[in-house]
Amino acid sequence: MRIIKLDDRSMKHILTDMLKRDPNHYDEYSETVQKIVADVKQRGDEALLEYTRRFDGAELDASCIQVTQDEIHEAIKGVEPGLLEVMKRSMDNIRRYHEKQRCNSWFDSKPDGTILGQKVTALERVGVYVPGGKAAYPSSVLMNIIPAEVAGVRQIVMVTPPDREGRVNPVTLAAACLAGATKVYKAGGAQAVAALAFGTESIPKVNKIVGPGNIFVALAKKAVYGHVSIDSIAGPSEILVIADETANPRYAAADLLSQAEHDELACAILVTTSSRLAETVAREVEEFLKVLPRSEIMKKSLERYGYILVVDSMEKAIEAANSIAPEHLEILTENPFEVMTKIQNAGAIFMGEYSSEPLGDYFAGPNHILPTNGTAKFFSPLGVDDFIKKSSIIYYSREALGKAHQDIERFAESEYLTAHANSIRVRFEGQEEKQ
Amino acid sequence: MRIIKLDDRSMKHILTDMLKRDPNHYDEYSETVQKIVADVKQRGDEALLEYTRRFDGAELDASCIQVTQDEIHEAIKGVEPGLLEVMKRSMDNIRRYHEKQRCNSWFDSKPDGTILGQKVTALERVGVYVPGGKAAYPSSVLMNIIPAEVAGVRQIVMVTPPDREGRVNPVTLAAACLAGATKVYKAGGAQAVAALAFGTESIPKVNKIVGPGNIFVALAKKAVYGHVSIDSIAGPSEILVIADETANPRYAAADLLSQAEHDELACAILVTTSSRLAETVAREVEEFLKVLPRSEIMKKSLERYGYILVVDSMEKAIEAANSIAPEHLEILTENPFEVMTKIQNAGAIFMGEYSSEPLGDYFAGPNHILPTNGTAKFFSPLGVDDFIKKSSIIYYSREALGKAHQDIERFAESEYLTAHANSIRVRFEGQEEKQ
Repeated sequence: MRIIKLDDRSMKHILTDMLKRDPNHYDEYSETVQKIVADVKQRGDEALLEYTRRFDGAELDASCIQVTQDEIHEAIKGVEPGLLEVMKRSMDNIRRYHEKQRCNSWFDSKPDGTILGQKVTALERVGVYVPGGKAAYPSSVLMNIIPAEVAGVRQIVMVTPPDREGRVNPVTLAAACLAGATKVYKAGGAQAVAALAFGTESIPKVNKIVGPGNIFVALAKKAVYGHVSIDSIAGPSEILVIADETANPRYAAADLLSQAEHDELACAILVTTSSRLAETVAREVEEFLKVLPRSEIMKKSLERYGYILVVDSMEKAIEAANSIAPEHLEILTENPFEVMTKIQNAGAIFMGEYSSEPLGDYFAGPNHILPTNGTAKFFSPLGVDDFIKKSSIIYYSREALGKAHQDIERFAESEYLTAHANSIRVRFEGQEEKQ
Repeated sequence: MRIIKLDDRSMKHILTDMLKRDPNHYDEYSETVQKIVADVKQRGDEALLEYTRRFDGAELDASCIQVTQDEIHEAIKGVEPGLLEVMKRSMDNIRRYHEKQRCNSWFDSKPDGTILGQKVTALERVGVYVPGGKAAYPSSVLMNIIPAEVAGVRQIVMVTPPDREGRVNPVTLAAACLAGATKVYKAGGAQAVAALAFGTESIPKVNKIVGPGNIFVALAKKAVYGHVSIDSIAGPSEILVIADETANPRYAAADLLSQAEHDELACAILVTTSSRLAETVAREVEEFLKVLPRSEIMKKSLERYGYILVVDSMEKAIEAANSIAPEHLEILTENPFEVMTKIQNAGAIFMGEYSSEPLGDYFAGPNHILPTNGTAKFFSPLGVDDFIKKSSIIYYSREALGKAHQDIERFAESEYLTAHANSIRVRFEGQEEKQ
């Protein structure tokens, strides 16, 4: 990994470079995605199945696009019992954490008969996108579905692309069943997103679509935003490790690589106050690359988006982290809690040497679907909040409105909204003298 | 207003018709908006000022695009003191309500040294769009800015289009100053949204853009979503009034008109169990139309999107409301609280005959920037939540990770993410026998 002494210029260069990974920059695919979305909206299942044939190579018809109970039972039987137990323990932690995110409806009342409040309602039906491809990601299935289930969503519709034989990975199916998916459909890519947004003969229209996917999924989610809600537009993954001279270089190196292995666009950055640590981590990375299986991917992503940045002070390291707003932030310093207080922007913050990033990916409980590529400046981890919405509650008594009515009429009239003023005024017709 | 006996067919027709007002359907403007956004992103102030000249007719240069302190003081002096007092009373209510929406960072700890939590951070810089045009909407300024201020946003940047003389409405400016805008710029339309999203020489880049606007603003917000966050895509306004035979028909009529006056796309629907009330309300509407100033707009919007729907039962009325998911819902029934419990989808719920919709627009405290056009099925009123984001907090001790490490390694390996497993494994190198 290259080692750079960080200054304003190199910082700016790194930020610009990282943002090039932004799905919003892939305009070349945008037209294709728009076309697919419009086509599925128009022709429903027919278009969906055509695209499934074209992109996934699977010959499905409407009668077998939904995964059956038999397929699910079969899948669960096929999963190694030990792995199922691990998934259940992980699920318990995820559920327990997300249950703490629940928020109540509330109200506030005054003795004059005023009641104001906020009613919290779960979304009725949500769509969960789970990537397919060569590997299966049952952990993402759990992370997508459990918060929806905890929020009280009654219909959780999952879509995931089939393989060429029209099958869905059994571990994915087992996870979906454990976590509580209501229905699972064999569909992926922009066509699956469009099907969830508009509904087809087979797939019901949902209120919100969540979950990460490839560039086509990301662009399709953006295209349907407004018709439905979406969680965010996911980009490639990244980790930033802040370390001082007390950090274990072997742990830091292993953690950087755990992100670098995702794909060639993944980004792994160490920011350290110790140039000695910088050197050792670089050496440890080289050592690991010799023995770890996915070293080809890691080498490519480190070459393009891997950095070891040496800074003069912990303040500079924190500033760099806040500018980059990493999806995953590890703090490997003497007092990680103190550093955490100064962190403004990060998806998840892992503190201390026994909190490496994969702990969060698989087990601890917080969600691993996190804002990527700088969007932690304004987006949050997927959570129960994503699956509820709020309605304001307003109740005024005659007494309460009586005290306010002239103010409201005046304010409305200042905006020339005379029918607004009228709607208040009619309630006090013939009462003007008494006020 | 037309009176219709509601059945499934008419319901479907009304829903389809209403959704035609959706900003996502205005594809004809989409290309223009994309072009403006790309141009401002590329050329900054130069492009911004050109569009301001073209669309607002104002000749500004970079030196006078920001509203000065002098202009603000001048503006405040020009506002009628009585109106300022009204605005301050309204502001107090808005602030008090939104303060109740604040949420805490939290953590949960276990004696084995596990700490999990969620850190809440205010967004650093947000952009607030305030429409200009003929009328000024100081109430929208308050509703946009106060929740950001309550959330703890340090930089609140407001944009609003200037008139042909390059001036901003003084009441708008006074409201911005009262509510706590940090900076105000004379810019509107898609060009102002692009300037906030990407930054120009004059206007700083923000993290999120909120506030309603016309179709160009709505499409521009969608175009920049992902680069920045946005609150939602606002469409035209609507009200739905549920009323039984106990409702005051004159109040119901006045309240329907208070929405119909917004613009020709506004929608006003009464759903009632009483065909007698239906008739009386229709008559009252006619009477009001004879005397209210904005009757031309109201007539047009009622003709296109105004309905009085007669239903067999309160259950049917509630079902209709939940299908339409109105921005504003009034419940004028004998026991409005009981009806409220069954409402799933509505931006704001106004209960009882002294809680007419303009009370919420101007004074009660809850936000008047609400999900429109059916999006209350998944969006919420603007609020403090819009101006904060969350970071997960994860801290495990050696003991805690020791108990979990084999599970995590196993789960990671099942997904073939071997460097993930390695990052956990290195922490227990040479310890296998002891486990």
